[in-house]
Amino acid sequence: MQNRRIVLASRPTGWVTEDNFRLETVELPPVAEGQVLVRNEWLSLDPYMRGRMNEGRSYAASQPLNETMIGGTAGEVVESRNPKFAAGDKVVGYFGWQEYGVSDGSGLMKVDATRVPLSAYLGAVGMPGVTAWYGLNRIIEPKAGETVVVSAASGAVGGVVGQLAKIAGCRAVGIAGGPEKCRYVVDELKFDACVDYKNEDVSKALKAACPNGVDGYFENVGGAIMDAVLPRMNAFGRIALCGLIAGYNGQPIPIGNPAWFLVSRLKLQAFIISEHLDVWPQALKELGAHVAADCIRYRETVAHGLENAPAAFIGMLKGQNFGKQLVKLT
Amino acid sequence: MQNRRIVLASRPTGWVTEDNFRLETVELPPVAEGQVLVRNEWLSLDPYMRGRMNEGRSYAASQPLNETMIGGTAGEVVESRNPKFAAGDKVVGYFGWQEYGVSDGSGLMKVDATRVPLSAYLGAVGMPGVTAWYGLNRIIEPKAGETVVVSAASGAVGGVVGQLAKIAGCRAVGIAGGPEKCRYVVDELKFDACVDYKNEDVSKALKAACPNGVDGYFENVGGAIMDAVLPRMNAFGRIALCGLIAGYNGQPIPIGNPAWFLVSRLKLQAFIISEHLDVWPQALKELGAHVAADCIRYRETVAHGLENAPAAFIGMLKGQNFGKQLVKLT
Repeated sequence: MQNRRIVLASRPTGWVTEDNFRLETVELPPVAEGQVLVRNEWLSLDPYMRGRMNEGRSYAASQPLNETMIGGTAGEVVESRNPKFAAGDKVVGYFGWQEYGVSDGSGLMKVDATRVPLSAYLGAVGMPGVTAWYGLNRIIEPKAGETVVVSAASGAVGGVVGQLAKIAGCRAVGIAGGPEKCRYVVDELKFDACVDYKNEDVSKALKAACPNGVDGYFENVGGAIMDAVLPRMNAFGRIALCGLIAGYNGQPIPIGNPAWFLVSRLKLQAFIISEHLDVWPQALKELGAHVAADCIRYRETVAHGLENAPAAFIGMLKGQNFGKQLVKLT
Repeated sequence: MQNRRIVLASRPTGWVTEDNFRLETVELPPVAEGQVLVRNEWLSLDPYMRGRMNEGRSYAASQPLNETMIGGTAGEVVESRNPKFAAGDKVVGYFGWQEYGVSDGSGLMKVDATRVPLSAYLGAVGMPGVTAWYGLNRIIEPKAGETVVVSAASGAVGGVVGQLAKIAGCRAVGIAGGPEKCRYVVDELKFDACVDYKNEDVSKALKAACPNGVDGYFENVGGAIMDAVLPRMNAFGRIALCGLIAGYNGQPIPIGNPAWFLVSRLKLQAFIISEHLDVWPQALKELGAHVAADCIRYRETVAHGLENAPAAFIGMLKGQNFGKQLVKLT
């Protein structure tokens, strides 16, 4: 039986290119006692993968060269020699950019794909959703009536942040690129306002959108966006630092005036969701209920076929996706 | 009876100059029922005063023009019509840059000047000491064996930070300007090491001084110093942001590479000690005991006479003081 996979062929310098990846076909070994064979239906593409492509010190090990690109996957068990799984089970795992995965069951989670769609377990009811949940509830700790701002607001994480903030009784203000994304954030995700960083003076637009200032800021972007938000922060504001996508290709993203931290006695806390496994059960339960009840909505951009994963990934890093970026493999 | 005082004559643009101040002589009204008259013996000069001299939004109201410069004072009651005080009592207050102060007793604290010197109540057993105590114990929360770095280490706040860190079982590393201050920090304050930012490559010297990385950083300075410390921070490091003296005259002090916050999942928390009055009694009690037991040491730079306060203040902003900057009025 054959398995197609994409490996990291070389490390990017600056922007990722398709040359950094290589599509390979390899033989799948037979399923051994205790193992399951999973056919991946969905592949998750996420900004954190860009960091893993670099060498050098970071919060996680580098993606090794010539190995299958890492990543979350959702699919179906096609053969099981493990009593905990049966053929036909829908499962979420971490098999990376390949069509099949073999596992002894560890790291594999059976999910109910009738209540919410299978792909949601890679988005609003998966890692991005839990990331939003943790940053908002454990770092920003919003109180009803406060204002929460989130950058990359139409993305898989940002969209959930704002909707959870609304559920918590806050004013939710997004920052996104372009009128279409901003309309979606306000009209469909029900944020109170959204600033279009591509077409508006972010500082002025934020001031107008946040008449009572900003109490919590969920940061996915960094750079000029953070510089525009800091002066709008209220005393004792909290910043959850989740990502700095503006700098993922090596661009400088200084914080221009850190005196705002002092002036407004701000807290900034960076986090990596994989280090907070204790919150996952509670977060996933709440997120699943909200999605099932249509209180949390999301959008997906779907590329088709493993061979198109590199182009989709590069597009996502350039902000060409709209909502959660996925690759449909089947 | 006459009282000499220094008022803010004009707001500085860039460096403070003596022209920004004016010495005045005013009449003291007679002491009314319930009031006390205090002769100030010591005047505290502190970096935070620089921020108050600016107009515009900050964490505290601006120092008004043509009013007595604010500031902590220590002195002796010379006349009391308040049953809680008697002539001869040593008291700490907030009378500002003047020779006498009149109070109804609020904000005035009787102190024991036999156990520790009166001037210590403006330094290690006063606001600077409590600032050090709060930032270290409530934000950095050091564990024995960790490494704590503090900038402006020979100053009134920084010296206490490192000594409290040593008491907590940590490795204490200072950053200070010049070999004399660094020697003092190591030889007299018993820090484990001190980096001379004027004569050393701070990044390299920090790496050598912190073989196990940096777990807690107490920041008084900002700018290039912070940029040098961030890459040395360990995962889950904590930064107490107390001051940014490098930017007090309007110099840009960007944080060059905030990606370190994310890479090392850092927490940064800014604070103003006057907003944490709940910790003062415990902190002052501990600090007083440590000073009395010679476990916390400090140095003072003393200017003599009210008329010399402006020059001493300007010198302190330029780092010309050594330890706590005071003005002796009597």
